[in-house]
Amino acid sequence: MTSPSASLVQSAKTAGARMADRGTPFVFNEWYAAAFSDEVSRVLLKRTLLGKRVVLFRTQDGRPVAMDDRCAHRSYPLSAGAIDGDTIVCGYHGFRYDDRGNCIQVPSAAKCPKGIGVRTYPVVERGPVVWMWMGRSDIADANSIVDLSWLTSDRWVRVKVYFHLKSSYVYLCENLMDTTHLSYMHASTIGTPDYASAPAQTEKSSGRFALIRTVSPTRLPPIWAKPAGLEGVSTAARIVRGEFMSPGVFEFTTRLYDGAVSECSRSEYRIKVAHMTTPETAGTTHYFILMARDFAHDDRDVTAFMTKGFSAAFQEDVTGLTLLDEQIGHFGHDAYEISVPSDELGVLMRRYLRQRSLDEHGIADSTADAATEARPISESS
Amino acid sequence: MTSPSASLVQSAKTAGARMADRGTPFVFNEWYAAAFSDEVSRVLLKRTLLGKRVVLFRTQDGRPVAMDDRCAHRSYPLSAGAIDGDTIVCGYHGFRYDDRGNCIQVPSAAKCPKGIGVRTYPVVERGPVVWMWMGRSDIADANSIVDLSWLTSDRWVRVKVYFHLKSSYVYLCENLMDTTHLSYMHASTIGTPDYASAPAQTEKSSGRFALIRTVSPTRLPPIWAKPAGLEGVSTAARIVRGEFMSPGVFEFTTRLYDGAVSECSRSEYRIKVAHMTTPETAGTTHYFILMARDFAHDDRDVTAFMTKGFSAAFQEDVTGLTLLDEQIGHFGHDAYEISVPSDELGVLMRRYLRQRSLDEHGIADSTADAATEARPISESS
Amino acid sequence: MTSPSASLVQSAKTAGARMADRGTPFVFNEWYAAAFSDEVSRVLLKRTLLGKRVVLFRTQDGRPVAMDDRCAHRSYPLSAGAIDGDTIVCGYHGFRYDDRGNCIQVPSAAKCPKGIGVRTYPVVERGPVVWMWMGRSDIADANSIVDLSWLTSDRWVRVKVYFHLKSSYVYLCENLMDTTHLSYMHASTIGTPDYASAPAQTEKSSGRFALIRTVSPTRLPPIWAKPAGLEGVSTAARIVRGEFMSPGVFEFTTRLYDGAVSECSRSEYRIKVAHMTTPETAGTTHYFILMARDFAHDDRDVTAFMTKGFSAAFQEDVTGLTLLDEQIGHFGHDAYEISVPSDELGVLMRRYLRQRSLDEHGIADSTADAATEARPISESS
Repeated sequence: MTSPSASLVQSAKTAGARMADRGTPFVFNEWYAAAFSDEVSRVLLKRTLLGKRVVLFRTQDGRPVAMDDRCAHRSYPLSAGAIDGDTIVCGYHGFRYDDRGNCIQVPSAAKCPKGIGVRTYPVVERGPVVWMWMGRSDIADANSIVDLSWLTSDRWVRVKVYFHLKSSYVYLCENLMDTTHLSYMHASTIGTPDYASAPAQTEKSSGRFALIRTVSPTRLPPIWAKPAGLEGVSTAARIVRGEFMSPGVFEFTTRLYDGAVSECSRSEYRIKVAHMTTPETAGTTHYFILMARDFAHDDRDVTAFMTKGFSAAFQEDVTGLTLLDEQIGHFGHDAYEISVPSDELGVLMRRYLRQRSLDEHGIADSTADAATEARPISESS
Repeated sequence: MTSPSASLVQSAKTAGARMADRGTPFVFNEWYAAAFSDEVSRVLLKRTLLGKRVVLFRTQDGRPVAMDDRCAHRSYPLSAGAIDGDTIVCGYHGFRYDDRGNCIQVPSAAKCPKGIGVRTYPVVERGPVVWMWMGRSDIADANSIVDLSWLTSDRWVRVKVYFHLKSSYVYLCENLMDTTHLSYMHASTIGTPDYASAPAQTEKSSGRFALIRTVSPTRLPPIWAKPAGLEGVSTAARIVRGEFMSPGVFEFTTRLYDGAVSECSRSEYRIKVAHMTTPETAGTTHYFILMARDFAHDDRDVTAFMTKGFSAAFQEDVTGLTLLDEQIGHFGHDAYEISVPSDELGVLMRRYLRQRSLDEHGIADSTADAATEARPISESS
Repeated sequence: MTSPSASLVQSAKTAGARMADRGTPFVFNEWYAAAFSDEVSRVLLKRTLLGKRVVLFRTQDGRPVAMDDRCAHRSYPLSAGAIDGDTIVCGYHGFRYDDRGNCIQVPSAAKCPKGIGVRTYPVVERGPVVWMWMGRSDIADANSIVDLSWLTSDRWVRVKVYFHLKSSYVYLCENLMDTTHLSYMHASTIGTPDYASAPAQTEKSSGRFALIRTVSPTRLPPIWAKPAGLEGVSTAARIVRGEFMSPGVFEFTTRLYDGAVSECSRSEYRIKVAHMTTPETAGTTHYFILMARDFAHDDRDVTAFMTKGFSAAFQEDVTGLTLLDEQIGHFGHDAYEISVPSDELGVLMRRYLRQRSLDEHGIADSTADAATEARPISESS
């Protein structure tokens, strides 16, 4: 019949108020994955991103285009219309928009009315990803798209997976900053019991947070052991570096080798995963994943085995985060969170997300005074 | 990246505020189609009309009756009870109501309590339609039911169609006042490319708005060409008169003939359609349609062909308006509408609907001062 | 076109304001059936009771345990975790809770943080029912659980049925206090036409309300007649005593015999039913039913026949109350209720439920002044 004491609950709530949650306004001034490149085609693609309905398509010469999915005339979704050359023709009354969003024809009018149009958004295609900027267009800079050169390099074999996640992207981001959950949520796929308590280092800088966890010696779970030829090996090393690169992008690099073999003669296997966490609505997320390996390039069986295994593992996150978001939504203000030391990076990242949101939306920080008192992390006994 | 200028958006919003939309309170002091006649029978019919739950049935001598679908005792729906003679017996505790809504028996009480009852509504049956008045009963006048004598005339062959539409009736009404959408929403059924830009005349009087559109010479779409024997004829004329007769009734008359044949020797084919647009809730509409022709009276194949073709065309409206209403609901205040000259009648009709609502509900017009400045229709360049 | 007069409506609303309805806060300081005993096992059982999410399980030595279904760390549902011995391990990060709700292990921390835990609830198992107290734990007293000794007696043969009811428990309680509805809602199962008007006596004391209805002579419906061997008998007696024992428990005892046979030589058949009406949410109820008979102990056919028949009858209540609650929710403040003499006990019970709620939640009674004027029961003419 133990409940946390009133002061611990209050302290948790004070700390929680400084972290982003499902109610925090989106960070718009950022590049997000809008779609996998092969989703954007000569067929209109309707998609909600950061709460806004947009329509995406590709011009005749292959450029991706994104614009608001609402005709200026009677609000009909443009995605229910048709592509004609490089224009979209509204499916209700035939208003025609060019690829800059300008209305250039109204069929019932001899002359097209002036000044009608819809907003378009900067989009940049890089390898398998179409990136999009939905914030202030005057500060959109393609150079600030996170550098993921392995997404376009021949040294890596890639596969991709997509999940429509019924959870705020905030909880997905925190999930990705925390690897202790592998021993529990992923006990049957990518986790091992020693994972949660393995030593870890952190790297923190403004807007970048990384966690390096070293599990060694260990027995790798089959999903890693089999492709790396380390099945049955009890002296394996598994070193994982996970980095929050932006509110929409995490990169994970995993190194695997047999620690019993000397450094010069052992083989090292690397797997990279990019997690792209694009908010759809306050309670849903487009979860784009790209996985790559630098070994067994032409082995389709390895590709199939790892794709299947990783998909099962990420599905566990999707299932769990769906439960979590629903639960937090149900409990509302009562869903206070008591943090522990392993939450450090997740807490810092959620504070960063909140600060970005406050700055961008010009919202005063009502918790500023309480900040020095806030003790987000529970002390050990 | 073009968006309409702030001043154009503001002007659109100002004009929009003067038009009825999905949030405008219903006009109750009006006759609406409550049901097709053959729907009202000796089986209790539960139906929501103008946001109110009613139950309809037919007495032993055939009179339709409508009353509130809520027992005065414990609110149980009367429609879940039973008809007994000309009375309804509540399915929970057996309270019995006569056809005037009076409670005349309470089984557990030796004497029936006084003064209990439910509201009944004036209903008038005319041919295939049961009309109903849900406003102030002291001003209900059957003479104000719109005159649609062809609904009961032997000169016309009729078929009927019903759609449960997930959209405010306002957008259905505007759709019916605008025929330029035939070239786009109905490109594969009843529209032709020349329709949107064909010349049109308008008739405007208080509470009546009509549009006459003449498409000539033209090639008729198959749905018209085949029954009229004008397939392959490139000199056809198609003259359509559509009229808003009341908030719940539109009448369309289409005349078809071969314009290359002299007036005295050519055959003329006429089709009439009554569109009955009865609000169910703020976001749903009972869409009753009656179609009639004055030719090929006994040709069942023509009946089947036209029924199928028209149903497909009206289904396009239903699909499109469902998208539209959902979209407008999503965008809310941001779903400003920029009107063009072909919207004139639709705009006038929506202003009229709003004014009827304001008058009936005694709501002051907050846009009155802005009225003279409002420029609903965008100027051509 | 009759509606109740404004004064009758006002009087009904005034009376209604003094009765519990679907908006009345729950009565927490009470024992409720949380589950049938065989539902609580070594598998975590997620359940919402009185609006709170709890998880139930059984310890290794068989004791039932109930605690809040929310990990103190990140709000993950504990029911999605695992039982390990007498502890629950959270499925997200492995926080471990003992059977008193104390967090005793955090895998990522060498030492477990102090003072973390979740609330547990007093539970008491009695025969086929696990009772639970969700109010102030300092006043929980197992002696106040209603005495239903026949639930554990060998003299009775029991079967159980469960319904997930989409209605406030208040309307289920009122339904159980009113047996006149048997003639209508249960006309084809357990009701007969003479039931609604049969004479009845009432017993009223603080928090206990009982109704004794004597239907005699009568023909029993098949569900009673067949097992009691009284088929075709027109001189049967059916005496039903129904009692509200607490906000969560009703007991019904039915006595059946042939009234034409003298008291000393006739056989009497008794059936007992416990209705446990545990609120799940404001609009849903866990409806647990236990039925027992004191005859034909070993006759499986009688068991099957009565189970099937009663289930069909209770399903009629479930169907009807689902309609009713939805209807009352739709009409809101307009769903005034006009009571009649047979509603007396139901009205008293709903007043009692409301008073318990007001007292427990420390809410001032805004209707107190109007109380003397309130005339809940309509006068006969």
